[in-house]
Amino acid sequence: MSEERRRILVIHGPNLNLLGVREPGHYGQMTLPEIERELAAIAGSMGYEIVSFQSNHEGALVERIQAERERVRGVLINPAAYTHTSVAIRDALLAVGLPVVEVHLSNIHRREAFRRHSYVADIAVGQLTGLGPDSYFLGLVALINHIEGFRGLPRAS
Amino acid sequence: MSEERRRILVIHGPNLNLLGVREPGHYGQMTLPEIERELAAIAGSMGYEIVSFQSNHEGALVERIQAERERVRGVLINPAAYTHTSVAIRDALLAVGLPVVEVHLSNIHRREAFRRHSYVADIAVGQLTGLGPDSYFLGLVALINHIEGFRGLPRAS
Amino acid sequence: MSEERRRILVIHGPNLNLLGVREPGHYGQMTLPEIERELAAIAGSMGYEIVSFQSNHEGALVERIQAERERVRGVLINPAAYTHTSVAIRDALLAVGLPVVEVHLSNIHRREAFRRHSYVADIAVGQLTGLGPDSYFLGLVALINHIEGFRGLPRAS
Amino acid sequence: MSEERRRILVIHGPNLNLLGVREPGHYGQMTLPEIERELAAIAGSMGYEIVSFQSNHEGALVERIQAERERVRGVLINPAAYTHTSVAIRDALLAVGLPVVEVHLSNIHRREAFRRHSYVADIAVGQLTGLGPDSYFLGLVALINHIEGFRGLPRAS
Amino acid sequence: MSEERRRILVIHGPNLNLLGVREPGHYGQMTLPEIERELAAIAGSMGYEIVSFQSNHEGALVERIQAERERVRGVLINPAAYTHTSVAIRDALLAVGLPVVEVHLSNIHRREAFRRHSYVADIAVGQLTGLGPDSYFLGLVALINHIEGFRGLPRAS
Amino acid sequence: MSEERRRILVIHGPNLNLLGVREPGHYGQMTLPEIERELAAIAGSMGYEIVSFQSNHEGALVERIQAERERVRGVLINPAAYTHTSVAIRDALLAVGLPVVEVHLSNIHRREAFRRHSYVADIAVGQLTGLGPDSYFLGLVALINHIEGFRGLPRAS
Amino acid sequence: MSEERRRILVIHGPNLNLLGVREPGHYGQMTLPEIERELAAIAGSMGYEIVSFQSNHEGALVERIQAERERVRGVLINPAAYTHTSVAIRDALLAVGLPVVEVHLSNIHRREAFRRHSYVADIAVGQLTGLGPDSYFLGLVALINHIEGFRGLPRAS
Amino acid sequence: MSEERRRILVIHGPNLNLLGVREPGHYGQMTLPEIERELAAIAGSMGYEIVSFQSNHEGALVERIQAERERVRGVLINPAAYTHTSVAIRDALLAVGLPVVEVHLSNIHRREAFRRHSYVADIAVGQLTGLGPDSYFLGLVALINHIEGFRGLPRAS
Amino acid sequence: MSEERRRILVIHGPNLNLLGVREPGHYGQMTLPEIERELAAIAGSMGYEIVSFQSNHEGALVERIQAERERVRGVLINPAAYTHTSVAIRDALLAVGLPVVEVHLSNIHRREAFRRHSYVADIAVGQLTGLGPDSYFLGLVALINHIEGFRGLPRAS
Amino acid sequence: MSEERRRILVIHGPNLNLLGVREPGHYGQMTLPEIERELAAIAGSMGYEIVSFQSNHEGALVERIQAERERVRGVLINPAAYTHTSVAIRDALLAVGLPVVEVHLSNIHRREAFRRHSYVADIAVGQLTGLGPDSYFLGLVALINHIEGFRGLPRAS
Amino acid sequence: MSEERRRILVIHGPNLNLLGVREPGHYGQMTLPEIERELAAIAGSMGYEIVSFQSNHEGALVERIQAERERVRGVLINPAAYTHTSVAIRDALLAVGLPVVEVHLSNIHRREAFRRHSYVADIAVGQLTGLGPDSYFLGLVALINHIEGFRGLPRAS
Amino acid sequence: MSEERRRILVIHGPNLNLLGVREPGHYGQMTLPEIERELAAIAGSMGYEIVSFQSNHEGALVERIQAERERVRGVLINPAAYTHTSVAIRDALLAVGLPVVEVHLSNIHRREAFRRHSYVADIAVGQLTGLGPDSYFLGLVALINHIEGFRGLPRAS
Repeated sequence: MSEERRRILVIHGPNLNLLGVREPGHYGQMTLPEIERELAAIAGSMGYEIVSFQSNHEGALVERIQAERERVRGVLINPAAYTHTSVAIRDALLAVGLPVVEVHLSNIHRREAFRRHSYVADIAVGQLTGLGPDSYFLGLVALINHIEGFRGLPRAS
Repeated sequence: MSEERRRILVIHGPNLNLLGVREPGHYGQMTLPEIERELAAIAGSMGYEIVSFQSNHEGALVERIQAERERVRGVLINPAAYTHTSVAIRDALLAVGLPVVEVHLSNIHRREAFRRHSYVADIAVGQLTGLGPDSYFLGLVALINHIEGFRGLPRAS
Repeated sequence: MSEERRRILVIHGPNLNLLGVREPGHYGQMTLPEIERELAAIAGSMGYEIVSFQSNHEGALVERIQAERERVRGVLINPAAYTHTSVAIRDALLAVGLPVVEVHLSNIHRREAFRRHSYVADIAVGQLTGLGPDSYFLGLVALINHIEGFRGLPRAS
Repeated sequence: MSEERRRILVIHGPNLNLLGVREPGHYGQMTLPEIERELAAIAGSMGYEIVSFQSNHEGALVERIQAERERVRGVLINPAAYTHTSVAIRDALLAVGLPVVEVHLSNIHRREAFRRHSYVADIAVGQLTGLGPDSYFLGLVALINHIEGFRGLPRAS
Repeated sequence: MSEERRRILVIHGPNLNLLGVREPGHYGQMTLPEIERELAAIAGSMGYEIVSFQSNHEGALVERIQAERERVRGVLINPAAYTHTSVAIRDALLAVGLPVVEVHLSNIHRREAFRRHSYVADIAVGQLTGLGPDSYFLGLVALINHIEGFRGLPRAS
Repeated sequence: MSEERRRILVIHGPNLNLLGVREPGHYGQMTLPEIERELAAIAGSMGYEIVSFQSNHEGALVERIQAERERVRGVLINPAAYTHTSVAIRDALLAVGLPVVEVHLSNIHRREAFRRHSYVADIAVGQLTGLGPDSYFLGLVALINHIEGFRGLPRAS
Repeated sequence: MSEERRRILVIHGPNLNLLGVREPGHYGQMTLPEIERELAAIAGSMGYEIVSFQSNHEGALVERIQAERERVRGVLINPAAYTHTSVAIRDALLAVGLPVVEVHLSNIHRREAFRRHSYVADIAVGQLTGLGPDSYFLGLVALINHIEGFRGLPRAS
Repeated sequence: MSEERRRILVIHGPNLNLLGVREPGHYGQMTLPEIERELAAIAGSMGYEIVSFQSNHEGALVERIQAERERVRGVLINPAAYTHTSVAIRDALLAVGLPVVEVHLSNIHRREAFRRHSYVADIAVGQLTGLGPDSYFLGLVALINHIEGFRGLPRAS
Repeated sequence: MSEERRRILVIHGPNLNLLGVREPGHYGQMTLPEIERELAAIAGSMGYEIVSFQSNHEGALVERIQAERERVRGVLINPAAYTHTSVAIRDALLAVGLPVVEVHLSNIHRREAFRRHSYVADIAVGQLTGLGPDSYFLGLVALINHIEGFRGLPRAS
Repeated sequence: MSEERRRILVIHGPNLNLLGVREPGHYGQMTLPEIERELAAIAGSMGYEIVSFQSNHEGALVERIQAERERVRGVLINPAAYTHTSVAIRDALLAVGLPVVEVHLSNIHRREAFRRHSYVADIAVGQLTGLGPDSYFLGLVALINHIEGFRGLPRAS
Repeated sequence: MSEERRRILVIHGPNLNLLGVREPGHYGQMTLPEIERELAAIAGSMGYEIVSFQSNHEGALVERIQAERERVRGVLINPAAYTHTSVAIRDALLAVGLPVVEVHLSNIHRREAFRRHSYVADIAVGQLTGLGPDSYFLGLVALINHIEGFRGLPRAS
Repeated sequence: MSEERRRILVIHGPNLNLLGVREPGHYGQMTLPEIERELAAIAGSMGYEIVSFQSNHEGALVERIQAERERVRGVLINPAAYTHTSVAIRDALLAVGLPVVEVHLSNIHRREAFRRHSYVADIAVGQLTGLGPDSYFLGLVALINHIEGFRGLPRAS
């Protein structure tokens, strides 16, 4: 595997383009570009880069996961609403066979009962929920650690 | 609040004293003292210290949570088997009113169905599962971040 | 808010482009353009105009709802099949925070059991089912009445 | 059928005599007589008159529905609490074989889980919920439209 | 009906573009183009031709089904992940009113519990599961037989 | 394994002796002997012969499956009513360890809810439902294909 | 006990006053007075008389059952809609401690699922359903037989 | 239909050969031959004869039902334990298309929960439970009445 | 509020008029008038008087609760059978907005499963079950204590 | 039995040592010692004394119940969190065979669904919930009344 | 009771004739004759003899249980697949009223969910599962001990 | 492994210290020391010794299981009440990885529904229930047999 494949695919599900705007009580005030800048910085400090993709279309998410199969080493995914309804995204993740870390900004256990079920959780390495943007940031660290066999926080170089 | 109260209570539930020994397929090979050393280091880098407690006794866990109420700023808890059966620990956490982050070494969504339900999850800030010892390490960062209003990885000082 | 924002977004879910064609036993014989003409007339008589959108794509419906957030005062929605499966549309409606009235042409309580559950109903102002095109027409009156604090039928001016 | 049979039976279930008084958060501030005056006006504009009946007694409601069988052309019913518990009212409506429109002032999908089930919904033409008094007013229009084969708002004569 | 309408629409749901690549344990090693070549040959031997469509987008599948309504005599569908979640595809199939045969490469009864429910099965003529590519090939024969009133294997001409 | 073992056991469950007689709406008009003649022809064209057995006795079906263990290469079974109630037949099929294809003349998904559960489906290679006698004919092809590693329709020799 | 207490209380639940009128498909064409005449004749031939009571009011039914406690030797009851919803009638029957036979004109197992549950069945001697007026007539024989220790048809005297 | 076809098939399920012996608390003290003698007498008084069959074998019961299809006008059945487990008997009854009355000696609503479900009840004319041998005797009257359009008790000739 | 409004409404549900008579195993031997005399004495000792109402009619209970809204300070209710079936009484209690204490003579947790659910419990201050007449007597103390901010037993004056 | 055995065991479950401190919204402001003082006074006025025990340890509660078996005449228990999870306490109560009254400070019917189930309720004499400290005080009166055959409030001596 | 009645009936359900052949992973390698020889030896050492019966026919098992009613003192039964589906065998065991010990070679709690339910367990003295042939051997000791009032291992004579 | 490790850990759950005292109807009259003496004798005859531990504390049971991990060859456990509620004991048993046999004195299938579920059964070798002290005695034989590859009763040496 070549060096430039040290990439992580970051997938954002539906309505996350509104982050920082909609329902700050549930989702906080940081916007998606701000989150991605921070993700890029963290990835960089660990020798990785990120490829981000947000879509409100289930099919587009499926296809992007498929398309990156050969180009990335893992998937950090916030499936948002599709967490609870999309077998297609589950199947796409199963098909590419990459390690997956699932993240949620809000605590899905505090909300409507239907939000407790995830079609991704049992095929992921692990899941982080309720930590706001930290779900992404720490989830990224966990994913790279998992891939590299690292543990804990990235060491200052 | 005095300076020395910058403490986090770390609670380990039943059988975690065997960590690194029992069922490494589910729980990994790191021992509890090793995890606690790393937790102390991370806490230290963020201006905190940790107070750890492992017990196989539900009542002892309840009492330690009660006892630390005035002495810590948050609780990092791996309730282990009591996750699924203890309303008493839930009530102790509700009683002390401190922010809680729940962690699990293994992916509870991949195991027996009864492990999917947690009596802590909906009263916690958030939950990290399946990340091995990183569930603890990143969970600690998330908890201190939550308390301090920080976000992301601790900055090298 | 400027005057030209006296607009209602009318959302039609999947397969409603076939209205008047498919299964007249369930859905009647009026076509979508005919329904929209009547909706426009009713809206006009109440000082409003309508913006209509039909799509068979869940993501497209999500995005249109997002896009109209600043431009309309309420949403009249017939989510059709997505009523029962789309958390993404629910989340989009929650995100824009506009008053919603949900309508169904057929009586969803008389059909397959899965059609009784709606992901929209509990976040809507109200729901009209089984009234044929009147579900739309009267739903529009109800929505504008709700926004304006009116009640009953629009008064002849 | 004679001309004077252009009547609609309006049935109000238990506790609706308190309308405008009890729990305005759920049920609004309009009283039952005020609602009935408006209903009469709307019916009149459509060539109909209404016959109203409120009772807190399930049996009385059953008997009034039976008694009007030959005298009215449709039933507009807010079964209130009996929506969820009365098979007897369902059977009375089945027995008279008249078209029924079911209305609820509040959004039954937002309240206790038991309020989501209606013994009337699947035998009614349709159902309007959550629109406040408009559930009645628009429900009446829908019912007369259904009977007459009309559609949309009554035309100014 | 003209001669050139002796066509069958073959619909492939999400992730089937990866066939032959992903999870060969579940789905086998034949690719989609290989399957379609064989389908075309079988159809040809029975006096039919096939029109194929694969999409990862639920809406695109809905629209293609709608679009072919007048042009084909039946639908052979492998809804893949949408089998379990799409009421919209069900409604599209209901709307076009064509005979449908549902096929699955893998045995859906041997996998996760959620895969046992199909939104298509009860509106289809029949279902073939677990036969690998034969689910398609034999399903096509069954569909044409159903349309033509044939039975058994196509006769050598 | 000797040549004469190229045999398939065809098992017909209870009431199938009435085929062509009872409820033609569900089961069609072809009789069991007619179906078996056609099965024999298809098998013959693929180098196989069939051994058929119909019984209304659960125990007799169990025993015939046991008895043929060494003599056949696969089982084509229509368990009829025992599909839904017989663990004994399931256990017999498990015991003989032969490949099984399950067939149903009618579409079991369109009938009473209890007909949707099969004690055979998850231990079979696959299942064909709703295709009338074609369920048998195509199921036989699928079974021999599965045994021989063939695919598609038998080639004219 | 005096001779004139050889009486049976016959209870008819809500809407049964419409018998012979409403929904003859479910309930047949015999009216309640006709049924009661026949019941009186059968009772007479067995040395009993009947006391009949029909009400649409749950409370009235409760009170009549209470009132007859000392005056009758058994209760023949068709609770109609209250079969499925009335604990009060169950409690009244328990309170009077008389033998009860429950009857239904229509087959409650063929109708809506909620009609399968009876609050009376497990405290009754037995239940007759689906036999039309014969449910009453034969139920009366069964009840008197049960009281008298008779069996079979009343003997011609 | 010839005169000698005025016959009723009386089917007794498993363990009923022990009647009068086993568990008299549930089943009474009358033996099966005694019951059959009385049934014959009642049938005779109504111009019918009975054909009785008891078996502990599900398959034998199925076959007898099939065999009598052309020879009897109705089936009086006490399926005993098979009531709750036999789809095969249900299918046999559906196949012969004769009117069926289902009887139970004991009150199935007072016993184990699994005894409340019957695979026969919804395809029968009606059901009599809990009346001891009277379930048979009155059930026979009901069945012949149903066939002949009679009602009430057989008239003394 | 005037002095004479120091009144408590005591509501007794259906069949409680038989108290002391029916089923003493469940309900004890004290009659309703005896209980009310004792209630009056206790109320008197606490500066209150009681207004009692028993009815077997759900509607009558609803109306009495409504009627006393302005005249009493709290409701002590034994809804008896309506505990488990009456949303109308629940709604009446919600409508009057008075503090409610729910009492049951017998232990509802030891009886039929349906008696465990109460439509009143979650809107009451509290519930006393299984204490016989003490449920009433102590419930009255609890209710007046709740209203007055008292606690424990009434002090001897 | 000697005079000094006129004792009641009062058991307080986990976290009740925090009473008056934690969550006053649910549990009020009285502390456990204050409650016990009042309990002692009430018991004294009725000729009894109390023995109190609070523990956060399920096993300790079990052992204390066992140990007091011969020394007390009844048990007043607030099992707190163990209400919902401890079969061991249920078994200990069953083992000692003493009369038990179960009390809860808060209304368990208004809180999380899991709090509605009690492993004690169906083996207790009765249950008092939602009355704050009065649940204890009145529960004690009820328990002693039950033991002594008293009824109502203790008489001033 | 004569001496020669010191017999135990040993019942083996369907497919157990294949023991030692089918699925040794679940059922081990000992054959049924080998098990019976050992059972005979154990019985002999305790003064008993065994009567064995294996059948794949539910009805045959029912009849053998009936037939041995007077001739044996207890039943050792491995109902195999009929454990989960046969009410008829349950009823036969209830009818003969003999003590029953139920045994399973494999651990039914580790297999498919439907194997956890037994129609025999709650009417048996006890159950042994998962011990391989020891389930039979030790079950026989337990059964004879139960009959004789013995306990523990048979004493060497 | 040294000779002195031929030991079996015998674990007795909560309330078993009362054996022979509490509820003899369920648990018999033998005391725990008596059972242990007999167990020691049986073990001795098979070349083993036993280590016994009873506790009412879940945590103490967990710790003893952990502590004996290296010192015993198997665990004979009667988890009593913790059977149904303790995931911690399950996890301890999983952690030590020793063969486990689960025993119950009473027949858990005849009691409250919650006693049918065991957190131990599916991780044990097997389970014996309902045999009184024989559950222990025969369970010990089964466990040692399992460890040693023996079968049947211990041979007299």
